[in-house]
Amino acid sequence: DSSLKLFALNSNKQLSEEIAQIIGVQLGKCSVSRFSDGEIQINIEESIRGGDVFVIQSTSAPVNEHLMELLIMIDALKRASAKTINIVMPYYGYARQDRKARSREPITAKLVANLLETAGASRVITLDLHAPQIQGFFDIPIDHLMGVPILADYFKNKNLQDIVIVSPDHGGVTRARRLADRLKAPIAIIDKRRPKPNVAEVMNIVGQVEGKTAILIDDIIDTAGTITLAANALVENGAADVYACCTHPVLSGPAIERIQNSKIKELVVTNSIALPEEKKIEKIVELSVAPLIAEAIIRVYEKQSISALFD
Amino acid sequence: DSSLKLFALNSNKQLSEEIAQIIGVQLGKCSVSRFSDGEIQINIEESIRGGDVFVIQSTSAPVNEHLMELLIMIDALKRASAKTINIVMPYYGYARQDRKARSREPITAKLVANLLETAGASRVITLDLHAPQIQGFFDIPIDHLMGVPILADYFKNKNLQDIVIVSPDHGGVTRARRLADRLKAPIAIIDKRRPKPNVAEVMNIVGQVEGKTAILIDDIIDTAGTITLAANALVENGAADVYACCTHPVLSGPAIERIQNSKIKELVVTNSIALPEEKKIEKIVELSVAPLIAEAIIRVYEKQSISALFD
Ligand SMILES: Nc1ncnc2c1ncn2[C@@H]1O[C@H](COP(=O)(O)O)[C@@H](O)[C@H]1O
Ligand SMILES: Nc1ncnc2c1ncn2[C@@H]1O[C@H](COP(=O)(O)O)[C@@H](O)[C@H]1O
Repeated sequence: DSSLKLFALNSNKQLSEEIAQIIGVQLGKCSVSRFSDGEIQINIEESIRGGDVFVIQSTSAPVNEHLMELLIMIDALKRASAKTINIVMPYYGYARQDRKARSREPITAKLVANLLETAGASRVITLDLHAPQIQGFFDIPIDHLMGVPILADYFKNKNLQDIVIVSPDHGGVTRARRLADRLKAPIAIIDKRRPKPNVAEVMNIVGQVEGKTAILIDDIIDTAGTITLAANALVENGAADVYACCTHPVLSGPAIERIQNSKIKELVVTNSIALPEEKKIEKIVELSVAPLIAEAIIRVYEKQSISALFD
Repeated sequence: DSSLKLFALNSNKQLSEEIAQIIGVQLGKCSVSRFSDGEIQINIEESIRGGDVFVIQSTSAPVNEHLMELLIMIDALKRASAKTINIVMPYYGYARQDRKARSREPITAKLVANLLETAGASRVITLDLHAPQIQGFFDIPIDHLMGVPILADYFKNKNLQDIVIVSPDHGGVTRARRLADRLKAPIAIIDKRRPKPNVAEVMNIVGQVEGKTAILIDDIIDTAGTITLAANALVENGAADVYACCTHPVLSGPAIERIQNSKIKELVVTNSIALPEEKKIEKIVELSVAPLIAEAIIRVYEKQSISALFD
């Protein structure tokens, strides 16, 4: 149908191409560039009047550039009379700043929600929010997709034997449980504890890992400190092999080096964040969320229930 | 008074120090840094509860970084119970995107106004907006200061003889008139015209410049194309000397090289945008807007009329 319009900004061009191909539409023509002084210049080069527009943009690094591109694009679409402006944000930047952990901190995840609404977004489609509570930061509809089934399918096809799903910290146990259910496996938890202030943390493991194939799971892997230390602890406790997986490969700073030098045999990630060439090392396997997102876009566009995608 | 709180973000540290010194307060303690993945981390390190807070930040390049710093700071101040949050923005980035010049363009100057209000700004103090209509983009009070008196004072003290104030284009004639009034000088206009499509522009000069000391004035000098071509045209038409001045030295891309190689004897700018070391060439004279801004802050804080500053 010609009133479904799909636009890609600069964060995820390849994923966007895949999504367009699955849906069977062309990506909308628009140029997103910079003036000489670095200000963003956006030109939408086809009519979108009355259309249901979907804009694909992860607010991955450079996060402030990607976020401003998105806000300015929303402004342009609104002024060009789009009927609905649906933001497809596979990775939601600033999600970790989702509460005041200390006095006088911002809650930037909420600010981002407000900025998107102010610019004119009608709906947000996103994937594995760092905290599901961020859904409540919006007054517009938000569809929250899950990466776990994609990761689970990959490991199912690998036919690993005697596996255990491991959460690298207390906060991720629910996520580990979800993966474990799909793989019919037990779980274990890395139970970090600091016995006294200024004393190194002790990595205790709750659950059976000896002789097993451990699969670590997290939502975001950023500097990869947590996950590589967890892998070491698993090997020290007798795990036979250690795999790791996450939805969002932020992989900043020392991450690639740490993963390269770690006990992790394979790191499985999704393309919610596009990996630049220098981060595509052999150990990293990239799975595509394009089929999932394409399905969500079609369901939103055809006003079908999207909840079936969450099972 | 202890309830006036002044904070500087990263765009104009030196100007902010000057302003603080004139007002006689210390800059508030806060750190504005980056997480490993490039996300902005702000920590306000002193109580501002119930205070009248002034945050100094130009949205100069890198504009998206500076704008997001400002929005996140406003969010943090709001949550820390500031009584009022006054944004001091000597340079308002994205001001040139103030209208739809073509179909399906954003109006980013209006988007920025909405974002500042959404984040929680109570008032904006700014200087020489590219278009004064941008004041109407806000539903909160905005104080619009003028750079012309500062530029005029500088040229008065130079005691130049037989001067003419020149606008480099039709849009800047009002500004040239204002400077001319203060210097009791006549004006001239560079009247660019394209005789036919795809034919080079003709630089016609309306007004007397022969044998005179010409002072070009603009609000923004960005790539310096307009101003250096105007300077050449003035010299070709017999001007004895050419000075140039502007409030906002954006100076991107080839600007410095063009100015260096141009007929401009001296370029006078303000510190609304901080010049990095490599742009501080001998031809450029920097005037400080700190006294003007300090006065505006004091008047806002003491609830005095600010309009006297505009005469
Ligand atoms: N981009 C970021 N990189 C690293 N840490 C962050 C980032 N954003 C927020 N945080 C911090 O991460 C913590 C929240 O993470 P979590 O405890 O995993 O929910 C808070 O203390 C935040 O200050
Ligand atoms: N950062 C920028 N650098 C150069 N041109 C810009 C910038 N932002 C907007 N513009 C363009 O400048 C024109 C407005 O400038 P003016 O005619 O001087 O008001 C519009 O056509 C804009 O598309």
